[in-house]
Amino acid sequence: LTSDVSAVRCVLDEVRHPALLLVDAVASLGAIDFRMDEWRVDVAVAASQKALMSPPGLSFTSVSPKALAAAERSGSPRYYWDWRKRRSEEWYDWFCGTAPEHLLFGLREAIDMVEEEGLEAIFARHARIARAVRAAVEVWSGAGAVELNARREAEASNSVSTVRVGKAFDAAVINDVCRERFNVSLGGGLGRLAGRAFRIGHMGDVNEAMIWGTLASVEAALSICGIPHRRGGVDAAIETALPTVSAEHPGRADAAR
Amino acid sequence: LTSDVSAVRCVLDEVRHPALLLVDAVASLGAIDFRMDEWRVDVAVAASQKALMSPPGLSFTSVSPKALAAAERSGSPRYYWDWRKRRSEEWYDWFCGTAPEHLLFGLREAIDMVEEEGLEAIFARHARIARAVRAAVEVWSGAGAVELNARREAEASNSVSTVRVGKAFDAAVINDVCRERFNVSLGGGLGRLAGRAFRIGHMGDVNEAMIWGTLASVEAALSICGIPHRRGGVDAAIETALPTVSAEHPGRADAAR
Amino acid sequence: LTSDVSAVRCVLDEVRHPALLLVDAVASLGAIDFRMDEWRVDVAVAASQKALMSPPGLSFTSVSPKALAAAERSGSPRYYWDWRKRRSEEWYDWFCGTAPEHLLFGLREAIDMVEEEGLEAIFARHARIARAVRAAVEVWSGAGAVELNARREAEASNSVSTVRVGKAFDAAVINDVCRERFNVSLGGGLGRLAGRAFRIGHMGDVNEAMIWGTLASVEAALSICGIPHRRGGVDAAIETALPTVSAEHPGRADAAR
Amino acid sequence: LTSDVSAVRCVLDEVRHPALLLVDAVASLGAIDFRMDEWRVDVAVAASQKALMSPPGLSFTSVSPKALAAAERSGSPRYYWDWRKRRSEEWYDWFCGTAPEHLLFGLREAIDMVEEEGLEAIFARHARIARAVRAAVEVWSGAGAVELNARREAEASNSVSTVRVGKAFDAAVINDVCRERFNVSLGGGLGRLAGRAFRIGHMGDVNEAMIWGTLASVEAALSICGIPHRRGGVDAAIETALPTVSAEHPGRADAAR
Repeated sequence: LTSDVSAVRCVLDEVRHPALLLVDAVASLGAIDFRMDEWRVDVAVAASQKALMSPPGLSFTSVSPKALAAAERSGSPRYYWDWRKRRSEEWYDWFCGTAPEHLLFGLREAIDMVEEEGLEAIFARHARIARAVRAAVEVWSGAGAVELNARREAEASNSVSTVRVGKAFDAAVINDVCRERFNVSLGGGLGRLAGRAFRIGHMGDVNEAMIWGTLASVEAALSICGIPHRRGGVDAAIETALPTVSAEHPGRADAAR
Repeated sequence: LTSDVSAVRCVLDEVRHPALLLVDAVASLGAIDFRMDEWRVDVAVAASQKALMSPPGLSFTSVSPKALAAAERSGSPRYYWDWRKRRSEEWYDWFCGTAPEHLLFGLREAIDMVEEEGLEAIFARHARIARAVRAAVEVWSGAGAVELNARREAEASNSVSTVRVGKAFDAAVINDVCRERFNVSLGGGLGRLAGRAFRIGHMGDVNEAMIWGTLASVEAALSICGIPHRRGGVDAAIETALPTVSAEHPGRADAAR
Repeated sequence: LTSDVSAVRCVLDEVRHPALLLVDAVASLGAIDFRMDEWRVDVAVAASQKALMSPPGLSFTSVSPKALAAAERSGSPRYYWDWRKRRSEEWYDWFCGTAPEHLLFGLREAIDMVEEEGLEAIFARHARIARAVRAAVEVWSGAGAVELNARREAEASNSVSTVRVGKAFDAAVINDVCRERFNVSLGGGLGRLAGRAFRIGHMGDVNEAMIWGTLASVEAALSICGIPHRRGGVDAAIETALPTVSAEHPGRADAAR
Repeated sequence: LTSDVSAVRCVLDEVRHPALLLVDAVASLGAIDFRMDEWRVDVAVAASQKALMSPPGLSFTSVSPKALAAAERSGSPRYYWDWRKRRSEEWYDWFCGTAPEHLLFGLREAIDMVEEEGLEAIFARHARIARAVRAAVEVWSGAGAVELNARREAEASNSVSTVRVGKAFDAAVINDVCRERFNVSLGGGLGRLAGRAFRIGHMGDVNEAMIWGTLASVEAALSICGIPHRRGGVDAAIETALPTVSAEHPGRADAAR
């Protein structure tokens, strides 16, 4: 799901609540908009291996002056994670260890790629591809056995889609079939959704052809696993990439169908 | 197309024709069956960058004793391509130059991968994926504007499919749309088919998800380019991966549709 | 320096001291002998980027039952570094984050290399190369301006050699000259030795040619920096690689000199 | 050896000889000066794997209008090597095969590195390092068993040095010792010098530390193989990197020795 961080901030402000606003941006930084300062977030954490398209091994923490002050006041013992030490150059050099420089070189290239495509274009691409995924799941859900975890479109995530599977079925089998027969690796359900859902990741260096291939694999796996679903999910996903031609070029659109 | 090399050999034998039988196996070695000795081929050439899944830069020549004897008799001047020199170890070391060892390391790994999967399994995978491609094109061809270049299934190639496009349309635009909008690179028509066809490669390290994503991109491109086609090509391609369930598990099959 | 861990253990045992025995093996694991169990070490930490020949980014902790029990008793708040969580497979999977798998693949290969060469052979190689370094420094120290930090041979480290530089000179200039003119990166003095020493690393994937080239660069840098030293350090280092031929092959040895 | 290409050109011109001037620049392009146009060379061939610092697999041919005209007149049958075909873009695309693009990406980076360092600086570096090699060999030759193949300094090559070994000794053993004990790979003698010489390559991405390490390995190998030589070759090689300090900083130089 996509959290409305700005709205949470507003509520905190309205009730003058002193809590720090913490955001886990691991699966969203670089895929959807995030505004640390404008939304007055206090602490945001992210990682290299999701929309930043780098190998796992790096994480990032951004801290507001308010959070820093809270850390100063805290009496909790700390060393490696001590923000005060890490803000000082000498401390970092001498006591925070050897930096994983190869991962940093990779991140440097990833950031160059982000700048080359442009953040706005990247957000638009993620939105487009996420819409394709949701269009497919909406069709499949017509038979009542699977459904999008996000009930409201506005709350759906543009970086990963969780699909719930009816209680009569074992969601894990879908993952197995996709991986073993089609070389497609899906995520499993987490926590209470373990065995009850699968997740389709669509963030980072991902494009239409990849996601259509993924959706086709899922559609085939649903059939193979005997999980009821309306056919045509991939067709609906393809449809989302087509210009809404009817008005613009009626002749061409007719010809095309 | 797939040539019936064995049949050509039989005809040559029947008419006692002295011609050498030469086979260009560049786009087929490692994708479909090839039997140099059994089919009594005289010269076969292949390359690293197709079904052998390696960077371009290496080519391979296999030569029969009969072809070697013909080369001995030939008075044509030659040096680098002289098979006699290359058969001798000393000549190769001293006069054929520095071997491109990095490409050879890559080829070594590719051959390990081939042996790990097994040639029979590789041929079966190529046949399966080629069938998916042809199933999609058959559906698209229902509107009369595109068709498979291979008229007979038995002559179709399992490593690349050529799709002809009606004279009223420019096939090159399909390639442009696939590359620019969907990151999918198709081949163009060659020779007399330039601008009149596109080619979908499906050899080497390729799997169902990749080819379904590719077919979805082509189906979207046909719509975008206004080229008439029956919808449902990708569905037909997915169908080829499903077990023919009706007999085996009738209940499950019903549920799945 | 090389610490005599086993001796420390003996002393602790003799006086029945309850302290845990902690070993920082970052710069020694894989270069010299280390016996966690035999020496009854309680906690050892190591890292990937030294003698394990891998990119920086991984560290390793080995913990004795006694140390684990102490951690259980401790009331200090902890989460990421909590050994109890990390010992349990489920905790690790769910709450310790995404493993840096690319670094793990590299480590896998490094361990294969270690097993191929054999630990005994690796220790012998490090000892041999360290002797070459010390032989060179001993010669240079004849002029009184530089000296080995390790006074006793038995305490010298086989993975890195620290060379002290007389107060009249700036050790950092030696590092600068080596790096800028000879592409050789030395370490600087740490802590109280900052600016007063340089360090020559010789651990991991290092061989005689590399270390002789390094020593030649240092010898040239000493000249360029005007730091008094007896010439012939590299000769002495080369000498350590020669069989003590005089007895075995007296004739050949004579001929060779 | 370094050929005086310009002088050969002058002689050809003086005697009005019609021969084409062909230059094999494989081991020199990018290491020493070469001027195709100014020296009026007709054909030059080079390769990727020497001073151009790339994997083997690419070769380059530069052809003068005079050589092209000669090729036009020639009746010799040719196809792959036909310059006329390769000069035309369409011919290349359609009939000269798939370009080894990964090697071209590597070459692109190598050329960037060449431009970054600058050709003049690269030539100066090669000259400097070659001088170091020759200084070492000159010292070793004092015992009469080894000597530089190039009698005159002006004719010595700055990219590779050939060292002849007296008839009483087997030069190949030196290569074996260097490779097996010190991880240093020397070249062997070619043609009439097989077994009678070894070659030290010093072109491309090479620096002082590398070459000093190499020379130290050779000096150790000479001792191990019992080949008479004056000691101090590496010292002489180091000496070449030192400023001729006596005049400039007499005091410092004294201190340093």
